[in-house]
Amino acid sequence: MFKRLALIGFGLIGGSIARAARAQGLVGEIVTTARSEKTRARVKELGIVDRVVETNAEAAEGADLVILCIPVGACGPVAQEISKHLAPGAIVSDVGSVKGAVAREMGPHIPDGVHFVPAHPVAGTEHSGPDSGFAELFINRWCILTPPEGTDPSATERLRAFWAGMGAKVEVMTPDHHDLVLAITSHLPHLIAYTIVGTADELAQVTSSEVIKFSAGGFRDFTRIAASDPTMWRDVFLNNKDAVLEMLGTFNEDLSKLTRAIRRNDGEALFEHFTRTRAIRRGIVEIGQDSAAPDFGRQHETLKKPG
Amino acid sequence: MFKRLALIGFGLIGGSIARAARAQGLVGEIVTTARSEKTRARVKELGIVDRVVETNAEAAEGADLVILCIPVGACGPVAQEISKHLAPGAIVSDVGSVKGAVAREMGPHIPDGVHFVPAHPVAGTEHSGPDSGFAELFINRWCILTPPEGTDPSATERLRAFWAGMGAKVEVMTPDHHDLVLAITSHLPHLIAYTIVGTADELAQVTSSEVIKFSAGGFRDFTRIAASDPTMWRDVFLNNKDAVLEMLGTFNEDLSKLTRAIRRNDGEALFEHFTRTRAIRRGIVEIGQDSAAPDFGRQHETLKKPG
Repeated sequence: MFKRLALIGFGLIGGSIARAARAQGLVGEIVTTARSEKTRARVKELGIVDRVVETNAEAAEGADLVILCIPVGACGPVAQEISKHLAPGAIVSDVGSVKGAVAREMGPHIPDGVHFVPAHPVAGTEHSGPDSGFAELFINRWCILTPPEGTDPSATERLRAFWAGMGAKVEVMTPDHHDLVLAITSHLPHLIAYTIVGTADELAQVTSSEVIKFSAGGFRDFTRIAASDPTMWRDVFLNNKDAVLEMLGTFNEDLSKLTRAIRRNDGEALFEHFTRTRAIRRGIVEIGQDSAAPDFGRQHETLKKPG
Repeated sequence: MFKRLALIGFGLIGGSIARAARAQGLVGEIVTTARSEKTRARVKELGIVDRVVETNAEAAEGADLVILCIPVGACGPVAQEISKHLAPGAIVSDVGSVKGAVAREMGPHIPDGVHFVPAHPVAGTEHSGPDSGFAELFINRWCILTPPEGTDPSATERLRAFWAGMGAKVEVMTPDHHDLVLAITSHLPHLIAYTIVGTADELAQVTSSEVIKFSAGGFRDFTRIAASDPTMWRDVFLNNKDAVLEMLGTFNEDLSKLTRAIRRNDGEALFEHFTRTRAIRRGIVEIGQDSAAPDFGRQHETLKKPG
C-alpha cells in the first residue's frame, strides 16, 4: 500500500502502527526515529521496524507515508524540521488527540506537492513507551481524519485504506467538530479522572492506603485513566482549551443540579437521572465499543472448594 | 458455620452471597425472599437456595444469620418488619454502601439478645438482578464491618469468618469513618460518572451517536459506573449526604485549580498533577485491587492475516 512508512515517535500509538502495519503487510519498509537515545535503542532491540534513524529529517527522507506519533505540542516544530526532506507526493499525517491546533501548527510547514491528512485513532490504553503497543489496538476503533479543505481526495482515500487495513473504522470530519466531540468523549473524562484521583490523594480524613484498599467501589476505574501519559495530556489540554472549557462549563452546571438534588433530598430527580444514563451504556455495548461482560470483563480468581 | 442463612433481597449482592456461601459450604440452609413476585419466581428457578418465601418475616424466622441485601433506604422499614421474628442469638447484618444511616435506622429495631453487625462488601459490577450474581465476586475484595459499640465480639468474629470464607478480606471501622472513606472511593466517583454521562447525552453540538461511537477515548469507562442500579444509588446519596457534599466541595476546588491551569496555559502545573496521579494507580495494581493488564484486560479481537 505504501513503499516506505516513516514513524516519528514510537510510543503506544507509533509502536502499535508499526506492529499492525507489519502484521497486515501494509507497507514495504518501516523507518523509525524517536527523540530519546534510550527509546531508539529499545526499538532496535524489538526488531519490528527495518531501520531506526537518529533524526526526524532522516526518517522522513524518501518515505511516501510519514506519521508523527508524538505529543500534540511537538507536532509544529517537527513538521518544520522535516519540511525540506519530504518527498513529492508523500502523505504527512499524525495521531494527535487535538486536530485544530495540529492543522494550524503543522499546515504551514507542508510544502506544495505533499499531502497533509491529519488523523486521530480513538484508541489507547493507560500504558506508554515502546513496549506498550500491540497490533490489535485499532481493531473496531474509530480513526478520524481531518483533511484541510482542498486536500486531494485520493490522498485521504489512501490514508483511509491504511487505517482500515489495521482494522479501524474511518470517519472524516472538520478539525473543529473533532475537537468538540473529543472534548466530551475523551478530554473532559480525563480531566475529571485526574482531578478526583488528585483529590483522593490529598484528603486529610482518609489515608492514601485506605483509598487504595477500598478502590473497588468505583474509584479504581478513574485511576486507570488518570495513569495516562502526562506529557500527552498536558498538550491536549493546552491545545484544546476552548472546547474543554466549554464542556467543563456544561458539566459544572449539571454537577450543581445533582448536588442540589442531594442537598434537597430530591430522590425522584436522582432516580430519573440515574435511569437515563443506563441507556447510553447499552448503546456503547450494542455497537461493540465496549464489552457486555460485567466489570469490563475483569478476571476474578476462583476459590478452592473447602475440604 | 451457620445453620440457616436468610437473605432478604436477591440482587447482585444477595445472589452472590447465596452462590458463594453454597459453593464454600458455609451454611446449612439458605432461605430467601425478594420484594417482587417476579424475582422470587426467578430465584426458585435458579435452584441455588433451599427455600423461597413470600415475606421478610417468614425468611427471618429461625435463621441464625439474617442479611438484608436491599437498597439502604429500605433497611429501616424491613428491620422493623422482621424485628419480632428474629431468633435469640441470631446475627442481623446488611450489605449497604452507607453505614451511619443503616445503624441509625436499623439499630432501634434489633431486639435484645440479637446481634447487629452491619457490613459492606466493597465489590460489585454494573449489573443487577437475580441473575447477575456470581460466587467469585468477593474474592480479594474488602468487606467492612461496623459493629455498634457494645456488640458481642464473638458475633463480629463469626461474621468476619463468614465473609472470609467467601474470599473477602475483612476490616472493622466506625460507621462514620466508613462513610467518609466510601464517599471518596465510591460515592463521589459514581456521582461524577452519572453527571458526565448525562452531560454528554444533552449536548447540542455533539450527537448521542457520536458520543457512543467515539467513547473509547475514555468516556466509556464512566458509562460502566453510570449504568449501576438507580435505586441503590439514589439511596446512597440521600443517606450519605454530608460526607458526599464534603468530598464534592474538595473536588470542586481541585477542579477549579486545574481549570485555572488550563486557562492560563500553565503546562507545568498540569504536568506535575498528571504525574502524581500515576502513582496511585500503581498502588492499586500492586496490592491486587485491579489488573495490571492494559485497559482492565479488555479483550481485543485479532485481525486475519491478509492473503
